[in-house]
Amino acid sequence: MATEAELIAALGSIFSQRPALGVEVGIGDDGAVLTAPTSKQIAVADMAVEGVHFRRDWSSLSQIGAKITAANVADILAMGAKPTYLLVTAGLPADFSAAEMIELAQGIQSEADRVGATVVGGDLSVSPAMVISITALGETDAPILRSGAKVGDTVFVTGLPGWSAAGLACLSAGRSHKKAVVQHLTPSVDYSMAADLATAGINSLCDISDGLISEARHLSNASRVKIVIDPEALATSPDFAEITALAQELGIDAWRWICGGGEDHLFLGTSASATNLPQGVLVIGRVIEGSGVELIGKPEFEKVGYSHFQ
Amino acid sequence: MATEAELIAALGSIFSQRPALGVEVGIGDDGAVLTAPTSKQIAVADMAVEGVHFRRDWSSLSQIGAKITAANVADILAMGAKPTYLLVTAGLPADFSAAEMIELAQGIQSEADRVGATVVGGDLSVSPAMVISITALGETDAPILRSGAKVGDTVFVTGLPGWSAAGLACLSAGRSHKKAVVQHLTPSVDYSMAADLATAGINSLCDISDGLISEARHLSNASRVKIVIDPEALATSPDFAEITALAQELGIDAWRWICGGGEDHLFLGTSASATNLPQGVLVIGRVIEGSGVELIGKPEFEKVGYSHFQ
Repeated sequence: MATEAELIAALGSIFSQRPALGVEVGIGDDGAVLTAPTSKQIAVADMAVEGVHFRRDWSSLSQIGAKITAANVADILAMGAKPTYLLVTAGLPADFSAAEMIELAQGIQSEADRVGATVVGGDLSVSPAMVISITALGETDAPILRSGAKVGDTVFVTGLPGWSAAGLACLSAGRSHKKAVVQHLTPSVDYSMAADLATAGINSLCDISDGLISEARHLSNASRVKIVIDPEALATSPDFAEITALAQELGIDAWRWICGGGEDHLFLGTSASATNLPQGVLVIGRVIEGSGVELIGKPEFEKVGYSHFQ
Repeated sequence: MATEAELIAALGSIFSQRPALGVEVGIGDDGAVLTAPTSKQIAVADMAVEGVHFRRDWSSLSQIGAKITAANVADILAMGAKPTYLLVTAGLPADFSAAEMIELAQGIQSEADRVGATVVGGDLSVSPAMVISITALGETDAPILRSGAKVGDTVFVTGLPGWSAAGLACLSAGRSHKKAVVQHLTPSVDYSMAADLATAGINSLCDISDGLISEARHLSNASRVKIVIDPEALATSPDFAEITALAQELGIDAWRWICGGGEDHLFLGTSASATNLPQGVLVIGRVIEGSGVELIGKPEFEKVGYSHFQ
């Protein structure tokens, strides 16, 4: 069993390796001291709990760390901002070892490195179930909000949703399917796409970690508009045949994954024009006057959602 | 059982009641948008776990919320900064009700109100044990670090430590002692004292939530100096007779609480002069060349610490 001092030393060996721009005082004092940002600041927080968001028999500690970091960073990107700093708190089993701490921290650090963010603080506690909470800070001069959708906008999503839900279904059924399982255990965030979206002059943006339809409804509510989504446009994705075949094999309607599956770190947004959108986005609908979400020809999937409390 | 939407609505009714300075977008989007601060920014994070940091049979949800918020805010104050924003993540039992959510949130909000901080974001999850993690942000032009202690400085603490540990001992032994129990369940942070310290021109500061000696050792390490503490100076506190009597009754040496008890949100610091210190602080020692902590005449208490992992 490691002492807290040993765990913190292990963390320090991962998180404090190099000086980072803007960090005047990092881990080790009561708090981090950060140079005043010149842009507006974005702040998000996410918690992940063992048995709810991850399982240690399915994921390595490095994968768990990377996945939770990706989820946080995706929220910063969904505001059109650049991630800067992370604060990580972890509740860990009393017998957690320094080697395990290092593996978890390396997973966090590797994902933070991909996007240029720095871990500047945190806290450790013992906990019966493993729990990790991350606060991510970011910066932008021009945040892109959920409330910015305008009547006449084109609706887009940065890929076909549902793969994380498909991976969860595979793992639960003992079915191996590399693409689906990888997207569930180590979901990738398209950082280059996010950077392109931040400067594309779009009107609204969110990430769809709570499911496509659920997030479209949030966007609709925040913007006081109606979002109309055309399933046939989603079906033009090169991935559609593969996810449909996998769903069929497991006796599931693929639209349940596509419309309601959570934990895909794709971005849903609206733009006055489709011509300024980065390559690779799927144009899936339009913004009209009204309220709510319409899924053309598939009203039965308009109510699907993703909630850990339901 | 409440749905996540109902819990979030309950939270919104507490946390989004009024517009706050600097909050351009609060709870409800992927992230909060905050006006660029003009000062340096301080960031801290703390996690509290049911059964480790609090017990629901000892504390109301409101007390739990207030206690965790106080612990976070104390870390910001210990940097000589003014708390500004909080992000709160909570892992809650699946049967947590909207009424319970409101009580917990009110506890957080009441403590945030005392210090002028605003809750700008967070996340909810189900969790087998209740877990709350808070990130607090703050601002200051002149952070006061642990590394600032200078040889010749006077060492001070803002009150007699040990009352939270005394309260925990009382609760564990089924002994009622209002002052001790209140300090454990609803520890108060002296916000006015913290504000005075921030402008007193002192050299170093930290909070002693991990215990007086343990934090003195951190300060000594960070500043590369030796901290000499005189127990007789601590014994001049008007509280000393009371805590000693209580300890004796429970068969405990009061110095164990005073030197090693955690979760007291008092501040330990050093100053080139004692004359600029706010009224009410206890001058307890001095900074000399060397390393480590010396407790004059009581070397047996120089190693006591407070760690949830030990």
